[in-house]
Amino acid sequence: MTSEDVVFDFGRAGRIGLDESVFCAGKSAGQIAGILESARERDAGLLLTRLDADRLTQLPAELREAIDYCALSRTGFFGPLRPVAMSGKIAIVAAGTSDAPVAREAARTLRHAGIEATIVTDVGVAGLWRLMDRIEDIRRHPIVIAVAGMDAALASVLGGLVSSALIAVPTSVGYGAAEGGRTALNAMLASCAAGITVCNIDNGYGAAAAAIRILNSFTALADESVQS
Amino acid sequence: MTSEDVVFDFGRAGRIGLDESVFCAGKSAGQIAGILESARERDAGLLLTRLDADRLTQLPAELREAIDYCALSRTGFFGPLRPVAMSGKIAIVAAGTSDAPVAREAARTLRHAGIEATIVTDVGVAGLWRLMDRIEDIRRHPIVIAVAGMDAALASVLGGLVSSALIAVPTSVGYGAAEGGRTALNAMLASCAAGITVCNIDNGYGAAAAAIRILNSFTALADESVQS
Amino acid sequence: MTSEDVVFDFGRAGRIGLDESVFCAGKSAGQIAGILESARERDAGLLLTRLDADRLTQLPAELREAIDYCALSRTGFFGPLRPVAMSGKIAIVAAGTSDAPVAREAARTLRHAGIEATIVTDVGVAGLWRLMDRIEDIRRHPIVIAVAGMDAALASVLGGLVSSALIAVPTSVGYGAAEGGRTALNAMLASCAAGITVCNIDNGYGAAAAAIRILNSFTALADESVQS
Amino acid sequence: MTSEDVVFDFGRAGRIGLDESVFCAGKSAGQIAGILESARERDAGLLLTRLDADRLTQLPAELREAIDYCALSRTGFFGPLRPVAMSGKIAIVAAGTSDAPVAREAARTLRHAGIEATIVTDVGVAGLWRLMDRIEDIRRHPIVIAVAGMDAALASVLGGLVSSALIAVPTSVGYGAAEGGRTALNAMLASCAAGITVCNIDNGYGAAAAAIRILNSFTALADESVQS
Amino acid sequence: MTSEDVVFDFGRAGRIGLDESVFCAGKSAGQIAGILESARERDAGLLLTRLDADRLTQLPAELREAIDYCALSRTGFFGPLRPVAMSGKIAIVAAGTSDAPVAREAARTLRHAGIEATIVTDVGVAGLWRLMDRIEDIRRHPIVIAVAGMDAALASVLGGLVSSALIAVPTSVGYGAAEGGRTALNAMLASCAAGITVCNIDNGYGAAAAAIRILNSFTALADESVQS
Amino acid sequence: MTSEDVVFDFGRAGRIGLDESVFCAGKSAGQIAGILESARERDAGLLLTRLDADRLTQLPAELREAIDYCALSRTGFFGPLRPVAMSGKIAIVAAGTSDAPVAREAARTLRHAGIEATIVTDVGVAGLWRLMDRIEDIRRHPIVIAVAGMDAALASVLGGLVSSALIAVPTSVGYGAAEGGRTALNAMLASCAAGITVCNIDNGYGAAAAAIRILNSFTALADESVQS
Amino acid sequence: MTSEDVVFDFGRAGRIGLDESVFCAGKSAGQIAGILESARERDAGLLLTRLDADRLTQLPAELREAIDYCALSRTGFFGPLRPVAMSGKIAIVAAGTSDAPVAREAARTLRHAGIEATIVTDVGVAGLWRLMDRIEDIRRHPIVIAVAGMDAALASVLGGLVSSALIAVPTSVGYGAAEGGRTALNAMLASCAAGITVCNIDNGYGAAAAAIRILNSFTALADESVQS
Amino acid sequence: MTSEDVVFDFGRAGRIGLDESVFCAGKSAGQIAGILESARERDAGLLLTRLDADRLTQLPAELREAIDYCALSRTGFFGPLRPVAMSGKIAIVAAGTSDAPVAREAARTLRHAGIEATIVTDVGVAGLWRLMDRIEDIRRHPIVIAVAGMDAALASVLGGLVSSALIAVPTSVGYGAAEGGRTALNAMLASCAAGITVCNIDNGYGAAAAAIRILNSFTALADESVQS
Repeated sequence: MTSEDVVFDFGRAGRIGLDESVFCAGKSAGQIAGILESARERDAGLLLTRLDADRLTQLPAELREAIDYCALSRTGFFGPLRPVAMSGKIAIVAAGTSDAPVAREAARTLRHAGIEATIVTDVGVAGLWRLMDRIEDIRRHPIVIAVAGMDAALASVLGGLVSSALIAVPTSVGYGAAEGGRTALNAMLASCAAGITVCNIDNGYGAAAAAIRILNSFTALADESVQS
Repeated sequence: MTSEDVVFDFGRAGRIGLDESVFCAGKSAGQIAGILESARERDAGLLLTRLDADRLTQLPAELREAIDYCALSRTGFFGPLRPVAMSGKIAIVAAGTSDAPVAREAARTLRHAGIEATIVTDVGVAGLWRLMDRIEDIRRHPIVIAVAGMDAALASVLGGLVSSALIAVPTSVGYGAAEGGRTALNAMLASCAAGITVCNIDNGYGAAAAAIRILNSFTALADESVQS
Repeated sequence: MTSEDVVFDFGRAGRIGLDESVFCAGKSAGQIAGILESARERDAGLLLTRLDADRLTQLPAELREAIDYCALSRTGFFGPLRPVAMSGKIAIVAAGTSDAPVAREAARTLRHAGIEATIVTDVGVAGLWRLMDRIEDIRRHPIVIAVAGMDAALASVLGGLVSSALIAVPTSVGYGAAEGGRTALNAMLASCAAGITVCNIDNGYGAAAAAIRILNSFTALADESVQS
Repeated sequence: MTSEDVVFDFGRAGRIGLDESVFCAGKSAGQIAGILESARERDAGLLLTRLDADRLTQLPAELREAIDYCALSRTGFFGPLRPVAMSGKIAIVAAGTSDAPVAREAARTLRHAGIEATIVTDVGVAGLWRLMDRIEDIRRHPIVIAVAGMDAALASVLGGLVSSALIAVPTSVGYGAAEGGRTALNAMLASCAAGITVCNIDNGYGAAAAAIRILNSFTALADESVQS
Repeated sequence: MTSEDVVFDFGRAGRIGLDESVFCAGKSAGQIAGILESARERDAGLLLTRLDADRLTQLPAELREAIDYCALSRTGFFGPLRPVAMSGKIAIVAAGTSDAPVAREAARTLRHAGIEATIVTDVGVAGLWRLMDRIEDIRRHPIVIAVAGMDAALASVLGGLVSSALIAVPTSVGYGAAEGGRTALNAMLASCAAGITVCNIDNGYGAAAAAIRILNSFTALADESVQS
Repeated sequence: MTSEDVVFDFGRAGRIGLDESVFCAGKSAGQIAGILESARERDAGLLLTRLDADRLTQLPAELREAIDYCALSRTGFFGPLRPVAMSGKIAIVAAGTSDAPVAREAARTLRHAGIEATIVTDVGVAGLWRLMDRIEDIRRHPIVIAVAGMDAALASVLGGLVSSALIAVPTSVGYGAAEGGRTALNAMLASCAAGITVCNIDNGYGAAAAAIRILNSFTALADESVQS
Repeated sequence: MTSEDVVFDFGRAGRIGLDESVFCAGKSAGQIAGILESARERDAGLLLTRLDADRLTQLPAELREAIDYCALSRTGFFGPLRPVAMSGKIAIVAAGTSDAPVAREAARTLRHAGIEATIVTDVGVAGLWRLMDRIEDIRRHPIVIAVAGMDAALASVLGGLVSSALIAVPTSVGYGAAEGGRTALNAMLASCAAGITVCNIDNGYGAAAAAIRILNSFTALADESVQS
Repeated sequence: MTSEDVVFDFGRAGRIGLDESVFCAGKSAGQIAGILESARERDAGLLLTRLDADRLTQLPAELREAIDYCALSRTGFFGPLRPVAMSGKIAIVAAGTSDAPVAREAARTLRHAGIEATIVTDVGVAGLWRLMDRIEDIRRHPIVIAVAGMDAALASVLGGLVSSALIAVPTSVGYGAAEGGRTALNAMLASCAAGITVCNIDNGYGAAAAAIRILNSFTALADESVQS
């Protein structure tokens, strides 16, 4: 048998504008450690997602201590963290406290890319006044990430209230007919509000990546419009 | 082979408070005609549901003309119609124009039982102001039937705004991830708002029957409370 | 990142007639403790649902001891419990002993709202005489909550025997083709008996909330009928 | 390409005790005609199932007229029909009039094998008294075939009331959560009553074939017990 | 709250010919102990199914020691065991060693009813000669229970080789496209062989109960044929 | 019954930046005509989607002739069409000729909003060179809409090659395991490429609406960046 | 809007060893005619699949008459047909007459590539002797394509009897639990016989293409082994 | 009860060209030990698959030490290992590091049969250049096994780039819409590239067995072509 080495894609940022990150679920501590050492050699920062606390403790102490870890979102920043370069552009709006891990994963992914998001939580539509209290603030953000499980009605209501780019993330919160997030996913896809796009269940990372794609294009367009 | 006769349950009203009705889908014109004649002999009125216009035209003219037919909801009233005995107790609230057939089936089922419902349509949450314009009126009804397809977010929003008994009917409106109404059904069942109960997809008849069960109990209780 | 505080909806009772309760599944001990302290400050009683025994033991002793806990239904009463104000209005009818946790969750939710329910268990239709022995008693209740898993035939049989408002709760009891309660859910939705409404799988809390919505409306109507 | 001839299994009766029959759905009129002619040459009778009226009319007149056709069950008897040799052994019990085609398919399959079944229809559990009126008669049959769609509660109720061999056939009657018969199928498989076995959706033919397998074994055993 | 006592159905044998048994999954050790004590008072034997070894060890020693336990099938015989009264009538045929627990559950259920079954295992169709070596013996049994997971092809092949009553039990053996036994279940239901009936996934108990129903009817018929 | 009038949301553009459009599937010719007349009175242009040719011919000639209809995408422009105000910003990339209707629906929706899209078709990854021939052109667009059915691999490959905002639309092209577009939908959601967002199956309209949301935000941001 | 031309992949044979073919389902007569004319200009033969008879008649007479059409398999040969270059290498084995269209599609695809397949039909395992009569002949073919619907048991039985490369094609034959071919697909994937690979439902074309891939590799290897 | 012995199929290699192997999932340590001892008596080597490390440690030391175990793929070689007889014929191409266990299971299965495969990993299409760097090497192998989870786009891209026999193995890598590998499975089955065949989810063993079937046929054909 010939080699099965990891082929790390360190050129990704140049190609598609997103830093390489490491999805740790299903990877052994040894595999993760290898990737971290490889990144350290190149002095590159790295975002770790789906890193369980158990797995974290299995890493060599030296590497483990170099990780800025968040247990709620199971994310880690490894190596030098770039400073915040942008804020006020992205609002992350979550329906309930159980949706917080996914909202935080999105926020941490953005933070790793130098973007500070505004987070608005516990504004599920069962208590509509909570959303209405915050809606003017939300509207000011050109990109809104809506995080909700169960019936995911928050996404549809937001879709009718804001003109921003709207990225919806279904969560696996709920039981029975919530079907592990499948109902929220389908409800977001079949929303009566137009122009909502959707990420995989619990995929806060993906929503942030989609927002970064938009911001990258924003910047490029803004540059053009300034120059022309 | 021994007999395969229809065993019509004319004692049902006495037993469970609901008139017998005829679900016409999957029944031949001959079978329906037989039931109508049997009802006529007993001078009983009868509600017909899921009666396609094609099937209607196949009935003997004499029977067909005795039917007060509504094409939108595919319902028919056969024989003497009892007068309206109650109104203002039930609101039927529908998200979009495509949900109208189901809303109307519920309304006609109630009308057949002598109950006039208030109908509020086209108040889907993608344009939340439309619902807010009507919410005070809706709130005044002790029973609210919410009819919605696709994401069914209307049910959850209503659930947070009214204290009434709330019966939700998912509709098969939508495509793709709407999954023929299954997504609306699941979203209603997994609603973030408490105390919503749900009927089968497109089952306006069932929602009306559930409302009648509640009203029957209302009356009984009210009688008790007056007497005691 | 801006705040991710819990926005507790203490005005809910006024708005929709249901006390706020706390769904503890997926919440950390810290989050639950925070909510309990917030409730204590306002001298409010609180219903806790889906509170695993493990999570309970993780709460600070002082808070834990203020909880009247039921392991079977995983529910807890926190703080002052209102006295029983009503009884004889709601029957909870369960098919088998395995359905008891869900039936008890409904009963405890009602008890927290001051309502004492009649509980009838182990009356699955495989031994029809057990149901028939109790049917006269069940019929006297204006609201019946039917709890059943597997084939859920109890709901349909009850639907043909009682005229009460009938709220069906499927349970996840069973294996294989029971599909974690999905079959019971679908069978209740597709019931041959008219006017049954359905809650999410294992959602005893929701069934009780729906019953409370009806009772609240009962009272309002009864008041009107007395006054008029 | 080498031959694609039909390989008809005329030895099946000797091997497994069931006559060969022809499932006509998906077969062209030409294919069916070929099979009929092949059967005629051997003077064999043949049972045709799922033979749509349209397909029937496409057959050559001579063959078509030799078919004793039943439109309700879409079955045909071709060629000499064996006389009735047994009755009173099998009851076919159907929940509603919409289940009649499947019940009839079972009855006709039995009739083709020389067995006359007792048919009891319209005894769905939503009107339990209808079933109770007939239960003593049903109990006298050593084999009971239960035919029901939607919630299929009839099978479970029968399972608790009779000691006979009980073969359940789900039907595709119903809509929405009935899921084309899948809910009835699952409910029968997950029945709370013990010892029910189940056939494919709408498979009246299969239920009859299963009953014939039992009767064949009955006869063999009875012969043994007489001889021993 | 009124009583939630277990209503044990000790009259079941008289009514439907099957002893009451206890499905232990989802029941607490306390609940099981209560049932055992209740049975002991009446000197009744009892079959326990789905009794995990862990649960067994939680029972009071006195009760635990009165159980003849089989770990493979998770079944227990409690109290006096009736002697074997019949053999040679039922063959249990299983495809692979992984199907043995289900086959054994069926065998133990039959044994509890006084019936000794012939067991034939490891005859999956991937090595057809293994089945062919045993087929003559299998054919001699009037009732055959086929136990198979994955593709469940064994049931179809048996269906074409034996004329016996054929009860198929799908097992949850396999992974991926085996879908926890759903594929085996569907393949058995859609079998190309006629007259196969099917039980729930892993339901060896149910298959045995169905066989007992047939044998009970056998006996009754045989008695009649002897007398007439 | 009180009124069931259509409540048209002509203020939507002001609120969320999207013109109202009419989803014609499931609406009668009469309902559509009513909406058109209502729009005409206000001199508003209107986009019609899912307008079957059959339904079109049922409209009054005067209204029908005022519609610029495209049969491939089943879309219509009614009334004055705004001029093209923007181009070169959005590329619509479709895998095969069968995906053309969905791609065209997106293009026409954009055109109605004054935006001309670049369309690139027949670049499915089974012939990767076709995509590579066009990739430099695609990369120049800040927003890319990827339209693909079956395995939807095009979306993942594009995701690794472009840094643009990437909106994926699954189509119902394919059969069997394509599951009516569900496989393409899931594959896009579970894509190995980061930052792809997804619309409902066949929802070219929704993808265009999402792109318009982004462009609206682009413009606002560009304005800010110019001003600051 | 820029061009939406078909980009035909005429270099495919050179790249992957398979001629381009045209999947006609979902393509208009105009689109098909355009492709045919394009092929004619290059004097290339073309295989048409899923070409409904209705669509065929809509083609210009000149093109239509140049098609060698097979209604059973809905395939057409357009233009010069290469002579048969190989036979005796591939056996296509089908379970029932209803599987013939799929078997024929495979055979015609092979014939278009110059390969004559041996076809063996009506050898479903319900009558195992039919397969056993042909098994020696089947075994002589290095590649076997197994075509079966419903329970698909034929594939597993073949898998245990032949050592050839075994490609399984599930068909949509059957109803109810056959789930449109999904059960056959899953049963083939979960087969108890090792080394079976599977194509999409009804995909006779794909099975032939897979066989051609193997034969191409055969030839290359054989050439090597001769030369070395 | 009669015997339930394992019937080991040691003649399988002669019949279908594949050694018997032992699927250890769901087998007890005792059952596995019995099989190993039976193999040792016959001096046969044996491949063990799905052998968890936990189960391994439960085996008697003597047997355990005779196993050449690979934890990543959970496979073991027991007894004498045949030498490598062939290489350069099969490439195993895996999309990501998480797919390595399945790729390794295939490689180890081949190695047990004396075949050394070329392994190419971490070439998922999100970084297309990684695949392009290796494509010339991959193309030289007459058989390619593609291993991928999530969107499985690698299989389609490979299908358009190589002419080899292409066996695709979906993996259960991913979450949410990846549906435990079902999405990858469906995407491979519905691939836009022709002639791909598919194995069960995570079935690296099956893919290797399919490749061995092809190689066995290769050899036979090559022999023929040399001789002729």
